Amino acid sequence: MPGWTSIVRFFMLAMTFMAMGPLDTTGPAAQSGDDPAGLDSLQATSPDGRLRITLSTPAGQPTYRASLDGREVIGESRLGLRFSEGADLDTGFALSGVERASGEETWTQPWGERRHVRDHHNEVVASFRSVSGPDRSFRLRVRVFDDGFGFRYEIPDTGERAIVDEITEFSVPGDATAWWTPAGEFNRYEYVYRTTPVSRMERAHTPFTLRLPGDGPYLAIHEAALVDYSGMWLDQRRAGKLEADLAPRHDGVRVRVDGAFNTPWRVVQVAGDAPGLVNGSDIYLNLNAPNRLGNVDYARPCKYVGIWWGMHINAYTWGSGPDHGATNKNTRRYIDFAAEHGFCGVLVEGWNIGWDGDWFSNGDLFRFAESYPDFDLPALADYARERGVRLIGHHETSGNISNYEDQIDEAFDLYERHGVRSVKTGYVADASDLKFIDEDGFAKYTWHAAQERVRHDIRVLEKAHARGISINAHEPVKDTGLRRTYPNAMTREGARGMEFNAWGSPPNPPEHTAILAYTRLLSGPMDFTPGIFDLMPHGEDDENRVPTTLAKQLALYVVIYSPIQMAADLPENYEARPEPFQFIKDVPVDWEESVALQGEVGDFIVMARKDRDTDDWYLGAVTDEEARTVTVPLDFLEQGRNYTAEIYRDGEDTHWKTNPYPVTIEQRSLTASDTLTLPLAAGGGAAVRFKPAGRAGK
Amino acid sequence: MPGWTSIVRFFMLAMTFMAMGPLDTTGPAAQSGDDPAGLDSLQATSPDGRLRITLSTPAGQPTYRASLDGREVIGESRLGLRFSEGADLDTGFALSGVERASGEETWTQPWGERRHVRDHHNEVVASFRSVSGPDRSFRLRVRVFDDGFGFRYEIPDTGERAIVDEITEFSVPGDATAWWTPAGEFNRYEYVYRTTPVSRMERAHTPFTLRLPGDGPYLAIHEAALVDYSGMWLDQRRAGKLEADLAPRHDGVRVRVDGAFNTPWRVVQVAGDAPGLVNGSDIYLNLNAPNRLGNVDYARPCKYVGIWWGMHINAYTWGSGPDHGATNKNTRRYIDFAAEHGFCGVLVEGWNIGWDGDWFSNGDLFRFAESYPDFDLPALADYARERGVRLIGHHETSGNISNYEDQIDEAFDLYERHGVRSVKTGYVADASDLKFIDEDGFAKYTWHAAQERVRHDIRVLEKAHARGISINAHEPVKDTGLRRTYPNAMTREGARGMEFNAWGSPPNPPEHTAILAYTRLLSGPMDFTPGIFDLMPHGEDDENRVPTTLAKQLALYVVIYSPIQMAADLPENYEARPEPFQFIKDVPVDWEESVALQGEVGDFIVMARKDRDTDDWYLGAVTDEEARTVTVPLDFLEQGRNYTAEIYRDGEDTHWKTNPYPVTIEQRSLTASDTLTLPLAAGGGAAVRFKPAGRAGK
Repeated sequence: MPGWTSIVRFFMLAMTFMAMGPLDTTGPAAQSGDDPAGLDSLQATSPDGRLRITLSTPAGQPTYRASLDGREVIGESRLGLRFSEGADLDTGFALSGVERASGEETWTQPWGERRHVRDHHNEVVASFRSVSGPDRSFRLRVRVFDDGFGFRYEIPDTGERAIVDEITEFSVPGDATAWWTPAGEFNRYEYVYRTTPVSRMERAHTPFTLRLPGDGPYLAIHEAALVDYSGMWLDQRRAGKLEADLAPRHDGVRVRVDGAFNTPWRVVQVAGDAPGLVNGSDIYLNLNAPNRLGNVDYARPCKYVGIWWGMHINAYTWGSGPDHGATNKNTRRYIDFAAEHGFCGVLVEGWNIGWDGDWFSNGDLFRFAESYPDFDLPALADYARERGVRLIGHHETSGNISNYEDQIDEAFDLYERHGVRSVKTGYVADASDLKFIDEDGFAKYTWHAAQERVRHDIRVLEKAHARGISINAHEPVKDTGLRRTYPNAMTREGARGMEFNAWGSPPNPPEHTAILAYTRLLSGPMDFTPGIFDLMPHGEDDENRVPTTLAKQLALYVVIYSPIQMAADLPENYEARPEPFQFIKDVPVDWEESVALQGEVGDFIVMARKDRDTDDWYLGAVTDEEARTVTVPLDFLEQGRNYTAEIYRDGEDTHWKTNPYPVTIEQRSLTASDTLTLPLAAGGGAAVRFKPAGRAGK
Repeated sequence: MPGWTSIVRFFMLAMTFMAMGPLDTTGPAAQSGDDPAGLDSLQATSPDGRLRITLSTPAGQPTYRASLDGREVIGESRLGLRFSEGADLDTGFALSGVERASGEETWTQPWGERRHVRDHHNEVVASFRSVSGPDRSFRLRVRVFDDGFGFRYEIPDTGERAIVDEITEFSVPGDATAWWTPAGEFNRYEYVYRTTPVSRMERAHTPFTLRLPGDGPYLAIHEAALVDYSGMWLDQRRAGKLEADLAPRHDGVRVRVDGAFNTPWRVVQVAGDAPGLVNGSDIYLNLNAPNRLGNVDYARPCKYVGIWWGMHINAYTWGSGPDHGATNKNTRRYIDFAAEHGFCGVLVEGWNIGWDGDWFSNGDLFRFAESYPDFDLPALADYARERGVRLIGHHETSGNISNYEDQIDEAFDLYERHGVRSVKTGYVADASDLKFIDEDGFAKYTWHAAQERVRHDIRVLEKAHARGISINAHEPVKDTGLRRTYPNAMTREGARGMEFNAWGSPPNPPEHTAILAYTRLLSGPMDFTPGIFDLMPHGEDDENRVPTTLAKQLALYVVIYSPIQMAADLPENYEARPEPFQFIKDVPVDWEESVALQGEVGDFIVMARKDRDTDDWYLGAVTDEEARTVTVPLDFLEQGRNYTAEIYRDGEDTHWKTNPYPVTIEQRSLTASDTLTLPLAAGGGAAVRFKPAGRAGK
């Protein structure tokens, strides 16, 4: 069929020539700018002047590098894109123009880890123009904050193109220590974190974190505003050079574009210490576009309980049968419990048809608007609403995007009709086995976080928004700050959550959350589902147990930010321990401010957060397998005010493995001038509520 | 441009329907066969009955598994192919037919590690036909030998298709020990071997070797007959499942096909011990097609010297200037040396224009028919020929395939005119940066061993053959036994060679060749370039040295098979040590028979080979960093015959690091009933020539 090939080539050639117009017609802001003649390099600095990005084109190769206080933090690193056909954007370039700007604004989050977010940056838009080879141009928009920098490619219209390689490098000086998870493997993002020298890094997910030799600075590498593109993994093909490796689409291409496009932002956070990464992580939100949904009042922060952990510990089943979890009776029990203890939502998994087959990676089975006969959705929704509680919906797709989209209108309509305002979605399938039906009717398989899935997620958010529904995605695309633009994307999974402690295959090690705080959690909220009170769900004689103390379970509600936070254990396990349960009932899920006070990656973290609705502050501290005592100056509290601190901490002999339950609960009167000393057991933690003294309870 | 997309879709759809004809029209041997009705599984066994392959389709998924003496050696492993468009060949299948055959023949190699190769196998051709989803079919041809098995997919004509994923798995039972090198990284195949549990394997090149738990059996996984396809890496995305991951083409697709096609053979060698893998490695040749070139008398085994090591130790330069290696004077010196000592070839690198720039990955520079002014090719070729020596040509492409192919006719014509019969090629470029110019004139970059490079190599072999020239490819596509079909593909690199010991970055560890013998060398000849006599080329005070003893350098000529074998050191270093040099002068490069006698992967190997032209036998033994004594029954020698053994072995105090030079050279009278005890020093080796007694010297 030689004619077919020729036709394609003809059009591709035509499109390429179309791209060769003058540079200044290709971007909206290209009319102004310095005289570019003879521009050897360009620099952009942070508002505080400490962080400096340099762009240059040695031997025609676009590159960038970064320094902090004059010390190199990212060495000379290549930039560029390659395409299946037509001219690449890789070599033969010179800097041809520059525009400079700076921005300072404070914007408000509808919900979040802080109400007000400050965006203060300097911006350089560098134009690159070819000086050899085919005529080409592109722009690189660089924004430098005090806490890090981001850049994105802005590519003029060259028609329909297929990106086969993004060349972006991150060149790490010296053999830094890295905390990372492997990418391109079957379990999506759900791996135990590895702590290795960079030289031992394999292909990794972002965000991941680095400590440069000599105790820092610390870097985190990630991306922001992943829209209509494929997620970026980083692969180390040559020593110290972490290269972008975009998740492949079903057709082997990395990204398909049509017309002018911008890539997601490639972001490097830079901080002097580990807590600085946490406190600087607004950079991802700042690099996303503002709310494009408008009013999202329906997207309300919420603590919830649900029929979920019971399946993981084999007390219930998702599928039908004698142990079916999603029965009317059981659901009413959870609703009653939620109403009694002030939870706003009840999640029920296993309520709909599809769970009786081998459902892993087999999403064809699921019917999203058809419940099992023992689950009466309308009646239960009414029962809940009468008690001030709402059902939280659940859509497990097992990775079959098309089967979900075929039913999604009907499915969301059903939930809207019954007052459901939050839906947990799931995509349990091998990382390379997200299934969809192509336009010719054939089943195709793409990678998790590849362009097709990224597009799907936006479609789901838009359809949910149309019904006043927010989304809590499990097996999600990683968070890249899109909740700013789509504030009904309230939380997600995207790392090993609590269920691994039920499976014990192996469980999350005690250091897990002390790494998560500085890696996955930089990117945004996580529905980790903390609050397990029966730490030996398989019995005391079973080695397989939840490797934390009980106090640490409480601390996770402060350490891990999520506007939708579960109390994951069975109701009877909370009823058996009402005193520590009080903390879960008290702790907010929406914050005025958040601050990481102390910590070290993989060792411990101390977080403080201020309630958005009251003047209460909360503190959470978790440690790894080492017992340690943290000494916390309370200067985050309001000066001159007296607080009653309700402290939940490990007892003297508490130990995650041998004696995890003892929690010492005490009240102390404290002020901002005081220092609080908290002993944390091995695998332990502490949680504190600071109430302004004299105020009546919440 | 919506019309364009529609046109493509229309044709793809049409091609898909064309594929849905009856199964029996698609393969030449499909007319016969068992009645396939109700075929749940199929078995194929080796001629000796010990090795058993089982094919089945659990839940519609084509799979295979393998057992040796009833013990599982490959667990249930998926089979299939996925395409960018149209119906995949993955699930929804049943076995629908079978043909059985067996083969036994002995064929002759024009040159080789043995003259006669026996091919004895049972064959099963299984037909798979869809039972759900789109109508599809394919065949799997399985050949089971006593030493292993291979299978290939035979796919009927479904038009132009793009393979995006080959699903083939190798499921390894238990946590075997693996010896492997990382794939998909910049340095092609040139990595230090890693010895790890399978659970620690990353994406790996083939061949690699496994020892199953409990001291075996041993497996090697590789492929045969890599033609018009992309090379197979193996990636472990889920525990214990090594999945095919084909090297990507420039366009992100893994392989493009047009019409019916066969994949390369996927091969698993199975052996009770490590030497069994070496002795069973004819399987790759047996799975390749017979000689398609015809007469290749020009492709003669040859020992050679050359202007090469001098560049690596900074004594000469490739480029022009005061230290230029490829001068008339220096070349004449090498020719004189070759003539005096019986070498048939002189390689000269750096003779042609292109070496003066930054030539790494920058093949645009090279002119293949234009020599530097201080290198007079016609005169030197004459000078050599008058002395019974031939120049060996050199074409460094730096990975620019198009620049080479543009000049290749002229380049080979030039060599043919001047009597050059062997050319060393080179492709020094990043593994993902093999460059070519596409039909629209744009530079494109593909992966080493991707389909474009595989096709290029065949074109080079055919063009060379037309001029009576054989090829020694460096930075090659891995060997998959193609030398049977193209016997002018005489040797190649494809692993870390001796030059790493010059660079010392780091050098090859002492165990390197004791791993190579059981991994890379299974696949075919390697131009490792042994024979370094100055083991401290940077001076005695420099820590950077060749980490072997001198005796081990001699042993490598027997351990490493190559029909083109270099004496790599400078002439003056051989002249300084004439006694051990005698072994290099004596050792053949073409063999009647070869046998691995003893060994363990990563520890040691003892090889014996019989000269093709005389009744001499040769023995080589190398050890890793451990000194050891090997006791070798000489029963490979002809019974009842007396031999004079010329033994080159490490001295008593020899040690690679502290005292590498002492070689004890002794003569002993021995017969096949004797046992030879050889002490090997740390990092040492031994080389032995067995001459039938009473015969006049060679």
